Amino acid sequence: MPGLFIAFEGGDGAGKSTQVGALCRALEAEGVPVVRTREPGGTPVGERLRDLVLEHGQGEIDARTEALLFAASRAAHVQQVILPALRRGDVVVCDRYIDSSVAYQGAGRGLGARDVEDLNLWAVQGLRPDLTVLLDVEPQEGRNRRVAGDAPEDRMESEPDDFHARIRGAFLEAADRDPARYLVLPAASPVGDLAQRVLAAARERLA
Amino acid sequence: MPGLFIAFEGGDGAGKSTQVGALCRALEAEGVPVVRTREPGGTPVGERLRDLVLEHGQGEIDARTEALLFAASRAAHVQQVILPALRRGDVVVCDRYIDSSVAYQGAGRGLGARDVEDLNLWAVQGLRPDLTVLLDVEPQEGRNRRVAGDAPEDRMESEPDDFHARIRGAFLEAADRDPARYLVLPAASPVGDLAQRVLAAARERLA
Repeated sequence: MPGLFIAFEGGDGAGKSTQVGALCRALEAEGVPVVRTREPGGTPVGERLRDLVLEHGQGEIDARTEALLFAASRAAHVQQVILPALRRGDVVVCDRYIDSSVAYQGAGRGLGARDVEDLNLWAVQGLRPDLTVLLDVEPQEGRNRRVAGDAPEDRMESEPDDFHARIRGAFLEAADRDPARYLVLPAASPVGDLAQRVLAAARERLA
Repeated sequence: MPGLFIAFEGGDGAGKSTQVGALCRALEAEGVPVVRTREPGGTPVGERLRDLVLEHGQGEIDARTEALLFAASRAAHVQQVILPALRRGDVVVCDRYIDSSVAYQGAGRGLGARDVEDLNLWAVQGLRPDLTVLLDVEPQEGRNRRVAGDAPEDRMESEPDDFHARIRGAFLEAADRDPARYLVLPAASPVGDLAQRVLAAARERLA
């Protein structure tokens, strides 16, 4: 496909949204057509599933149901938004993708990385990012940043630190298995430095 | 597990709800503890997914998303309702289960029976019914019965006859592969005759 698919991954409080925004603005300033999107969500059905799976008080949602809801949201997102944009030749910049499910449901909830990855690859017809930026954040640091923010913690964020430690490990393992596709950056670095390194990696893939 | 799990399957308009009700009343009259339930639905999250996937006007829902939403509803249903009831020793009578996904999404939407079955077996941790009653209905007959009813057709029912013909074929194939588990009945038979044959099969499994 003519487009370029860039995913941002990392624990809660890693600063993904900030970096997604910085990259999109930089590319747009260079005249590159960019689609900025996020998961779960990105489509009407996906945004309804996002509320269902992230907000507290939606009734009991066990681990498998949770994994299937994220995969359903992702299937719609790829089919309706990401694939059409890549076919047009756009750059798609997505806040979270399959690695987040492998980390949160596979490692965090204990469903197993392999099963969750297989489920999601079926959901997205095998589509993987061309570049995955992993913002590596220590659980305590992530929590500090979330507490400093205004928003109340969602169902995932409010899990204890050992849950977030398993998630961090799973992200790093995914990057180890496929180093050519990943740019792993320490989330604690200055925002401007991170943005420069991300933009350089994106430009390299675009060239 | 000490309980008994009975699923009803068949195309739209086969008369499943009528037979589910008749069986539950007959068993309850004999003092058997019965849990009557349905899919999609059966839990708070499942009922919300039921609306999302069956009602018209919910936004575009492609085949994979649809299959994942049914599987998510089923995962919650098994975890929260069916497994606890079977552990208590109850009889669970469920209107639709995995075979409906294999038929509607696997055959009807063309995703493939095997992939959809694998997805669902993962969702339900491998739980299969002890007895599956298949009410075999011809597509035209099913449509006539639905038109005679009061309710407007949902997203599945309003599909054309060739969709429903593929579904019928998939149900019959599933029954052919595992004849010991299935009771296949012609939906056009008199309601009372069907109810007697279903009750006899249930009693046999209970004995």
